[in-house]
Amino acid sequence: MRLDQLWAGGRLHELDRDECAELLASTRIGRIAYNDADGPVVLPVNYIFDGQTVLFRTSPYGDLARHLAEVVAFQVDGFDDFTESGWSVLVRGRAAVIDHGDLPGWSPRPHPWPEGVDQLLVQVRPRSIAGRRLFPS
Amino acid sequence: MRLDQLWAGGRLHELDRDECAELLASTRIGRIAYNDADGPVVLPVNYIFDGQTVLFRTSPYGDLARHLAEVVAFQVDGFDDFTESGWSVLVRGRAAVIDHGDLPGWSPRPHPWPEGVDQLLVQVRPRSIAGRRLFPS
Repeated sequence: MRLDQLWAGGRLHELDRDECAELLASTRIGRIAYNDADGPVVLPVNYIFDGQTVLFRTSPYGDLARHLAEVVAFQVDGFDDFTESGWSVLVRGRAAVIDHGDLPGWSPRPHPWPEGVDQLLVQVRPRSIAGRRLFPS
Repeated sequence: MRLDQLWAGGRLHELDRDECAELLASTRIGRIAYNDADGPVVLPVNYIFDGQTVLFRTSPYGDLARHLAEVVAFQVDGFDDFTESGWSVLVRGRAAVIDHGDLPGWSPRPHPWPEGVDQLLVQVRPRSIAGRRLFPS
């Protein structure tokens, strides 16, 4: 038996919808995954989760904007190196460009960290939300 | 003009292959992206980067193992909330299951944090590696 097969790991636990929503609202950076002609692409974006949908901004001239009509995934996670534990949440659905005026005036807007003209406001409507927490061993 | 259009952001800088390799070797958790019948999926994995390829382990019974014959992406990133800066690296290529014996004896192996039977050793051979660094504004 190899040494690495003796290694004791942490337990994985499936998260329910409310736990996933809480974690989605707890952080500012997620990753949008979409497909171009060469397969999946994953890019970090600043986002907000309004309780129902994921909102982020992107440039109208970028590769991401050209592939928004297709199904996407949006992922967030968090880890602790010391206890070797963490969590991850995966939103799957379709992304659509919406108008800034479609959001209520009081609603928070996503603020991209990079400079530039990220004028497109993109909304991901979840078809599924799933997540897992890894407890320390 | 809206207030959020006045917001000054950080500069994005494309990373070269050596910088990407250094960042890939600097961290322990990345995200594998693949497609199932419903589109892209993104899952965190413990990995190692041996300088040329990405290695991680997964269960032979999982959804991930069933989709490894296709093109995948592997993504790592790191951020600093205070300075609103960070970096991300994206590896695109094909994933293949390899035998533990195919690796040199001295070569480090990936150690998944979760308990279980993650017996499949998966290697992602990059077709492309690209990355960006976001400098503080």
